[in-house]
Amino acid sequence: MVPGFKAAAVASGLKKDPVLDLALILSEKEATAAGVFTTNRVKAAPVLLSMDRVRKGRARAIVANAGNANACTGKEGLERARATTALVASELGIGEEEVLVGSTGVIGQPLDMDRIRPAVPELARILSAEGIPAASRAIMTTDSFPKISRFDGKAGGTPYRIVGMAKGAGMIMPHMATMLAFILSDIQIDGHGLKSALQNSVESTFNRITVDGDTSTNDTVLVLANGMAGNGALDEADMETFTRGLRQVMAALARMIVQDGEGATKVIQVRVRGAAGAADALNAARTVANSSLVKTAFYGEDPNWGRIMAALGRSGIMMDEKRVDLWIDDAQIVSGGLGKGAEAEKLAARNMKEKAFTLTIELHQGNFEDTVITCDLTHDYVSINADYRS
Amino acid sequence: MVPGFKAAAVASGLKKDPVLDLALILSEKEATAAGVFTTNRVKAAPVLLSMDRVRKGRARAIVANAGNANACTGKEGLERARATTALVASELGIGEEEVLVGSTGVIGQPLDMDRIRPAVPELARILSAEGIPAASRAIMTTDSFPKISRFDGKAGGTPYRIVGMAKGAGMIMPHMATMLAFILSDIQIDGHGLKSALQNSVESTFNRITVDGDTSTNDTVLVLANGMAGNGALDEADMETFTRGLRQVMAALARMIVQDGEGATKVIQVRVRGAAGAADALNAARTVANSSLVKTAFYGEDPNWGRIMAALGRSGIMMDEKRVDLWIDDAQIVSGGLGKGAEAEKLAARNMKEKAFTLTIELHQGNFEDTVITCDLTHDYVSINADYRS
Repeated sequence: MVPGFKAAAVASGLKKDPVLDLALILSEKEATAAGVFTTNRVKAAPVLLSMDRVRKGRARAIVANAGNANACTGKEGLERARATTALVASELGIGEEEVLVGSTGVIGQPLDMDRIRPAVPELARILSAEGIPAASRAIMTTDSFPKISRFDGKAGGTPYRIVGMAKGAGMIMPHMATMLAFILSDIQIDGHGLKSALQNSVESTFNRITVDGDTSTNDTVLVLANGMAGNGALDEADMETFTRGLRQVMAALARMIVQDGEGATKVIQVRVRGAAGAADALNAARTVANSSLVKTAFYGEDPNWGRIMAALGRSGIMMDEKRVDLWIDDAQIVSGGLGKGAEAEKLAARNMKEKAFTLTIELHQGNFEDTVITCDLTHDYVSINADYRS
Repeated sequence: MVPGFKAAAVASGLKKDPVLDLALILSEKEATAAGVFTTNRVKAAPVLLSMDRVRKGRARAIVANAGNANACTGKEGLERARATTALVASELGIGEEEVLVGSTGVIGQPLDMDRIRPAVPELARILSAEGIPAASRAIMTTDSFPKISRFDGKAGGTPYRIVGMAKGAGMIMPHMATMLAFILSDIQIDGHGLKSALQNSVESTFNRITVDGDTSTNDTVLVLANGMAGNGALDEADMETFTRGLRQVMAALARMIVQDGEGATKVIQVRVRGAAGAADALNAARTVANSSLVKTAFYGEDPNWGRIMAALGRSGIMMDEKRVDLWIDDAQIVSGGLGKGAEAEKLAARNMKEKAFTLTIELHQGNFEDTVITCDLTHDYVSINADYRS
């Protein structure tokens, strides 16, 4: 799928069920690498290790597992993350420092090396250019579908490709990066360019979604670019195209994560306009997008705008109730802080029956806007999370 | 129940079902009055009116309705809140300014004065010293039981009583006061003393509970003290007793609100110890107490401590993962940031089967502590809130 990248996945037994749970991605050539990681103060062992290794801007491989987050596992956890990369390095004949690692799953349980040790040679044996879909399956936890997105671009006339994969359905309110997302490209790009393209993209994509307001200990986004496309140095327009492509791939993955939000039946864009400042716009959108009362009303297809007003009111932003307008898609339900009546709400309720809709909040305080993508809060969310470990 | 206070309730029709929904409380003598109100920027009309009137520190009556919050209703809403108090004043032959008002229910719908107008004379007619339980029923919305608490004290040898009532089950994360709570006492006390006793009590009671992390537009706590006990001036010990009594009554009501939290099956005390500062202690307790993932794990009776660590990690407090200890009642499940194993978790899971338990978080960062009371997040929470207006 991307020139110069191979991937593979096996069912190592880290998950109870016999499903794919260990993935390996290899770049034939040394690749430029960049990453962003969770801002949670509690960081998983693989996050600590990958943060350290990605700093030098070069990598050859990513090994990732589901079923165990290897978080809150102390020195032993860090040792096991390192041992995993050492196994991979020795099997592939590359340097240990060139292997990045990601984990996702239950927090606080020791990573079972007896599962990983025999699985690594098998992974190396079956590595193939067609292995990316299998790898994207192997990083799923409560996800209901694998998440892959692709972009085809040109740099100075030379075609290249970006392919991203991600996992994530719960513990989703990234502050800096989210979940596991691995993005591969054959573009030739230097470390500085790759890093800046990643940072420019993460803020408007992964950092603008929420499922449950919880930030994971394991959030990791890694981008590898191996230069196999053979393009020349990137000019400004090329960088713009690449960044746009990267953002497009990440935005698609981010949206898929919300769509696959635990128990979710709907994807809702919460768009705030006319805020007094950028922080207000984001704060207002996040507060509404995380309100349990608003999210259950979305589930009930009830344009219960009083809950939206209450959430705005407690968000601490500059606002004047009497200036607020609200829409559900094209149906305006609030004008100047007052309800537009039963007919308007009937139209809004009809829009809410769709699998995706947009809540627009116009504050009339200034010129700043922001958007957060969220999902509804459902019975299945409770079922999934009350039963997770049992 | 409290000398000099009468109360009554009727089914005015503000609620669809023919249940008590309008309450009136009258003090035979002018009472010292104090109040605290929601910090939500969107404030309901009755909140605005009562905030204004309680400032002079004297009141005779409280009129309160369920079924309609009279919030986000503009000038007309304020006019109707005022008209309601005028009806009450004229019926009782007291001043309009002496009547306080509270409303709770759906936001954004006009208050139906045609229901209130004929109900007020009926309320006045049936006022009685035994009416407090009926009044406490009339302010219920999604509450499943009425909430009343009582304290008997002495001031300089003279006995007096404090009786409080409250409603609240959802949209509960008070920042300053919560829901509707009306507290009556026959103690003789000046406005300054009453206000300071109220402020000293609200912070550790109503401001330390959460059901869903949402702050209402209508939160109101009103205290009336009519002096009928005939005690003399309060000395320091008397003030201490009264404040303790008030706090006890408010703490009991606050706990009842969580116990009656929408869909809740369990009440959980989240106690944070060893925080580096007071703000850290409260922030950590609030973040854990509001985490959907933690609350669903409580529901599942699953000591899933990784979710607690993740919530602590994103709260922004000073912490070192390696120093954190966690207990569920007497069962320690985490020591120095690491799990204590399956046996310990089995004990913790057994404790979690109770209707009430305590999660203790020891941060080992300093000497500050705080406690927030929360409930579990259940299927019924989703059912109640997806269907609320339909």
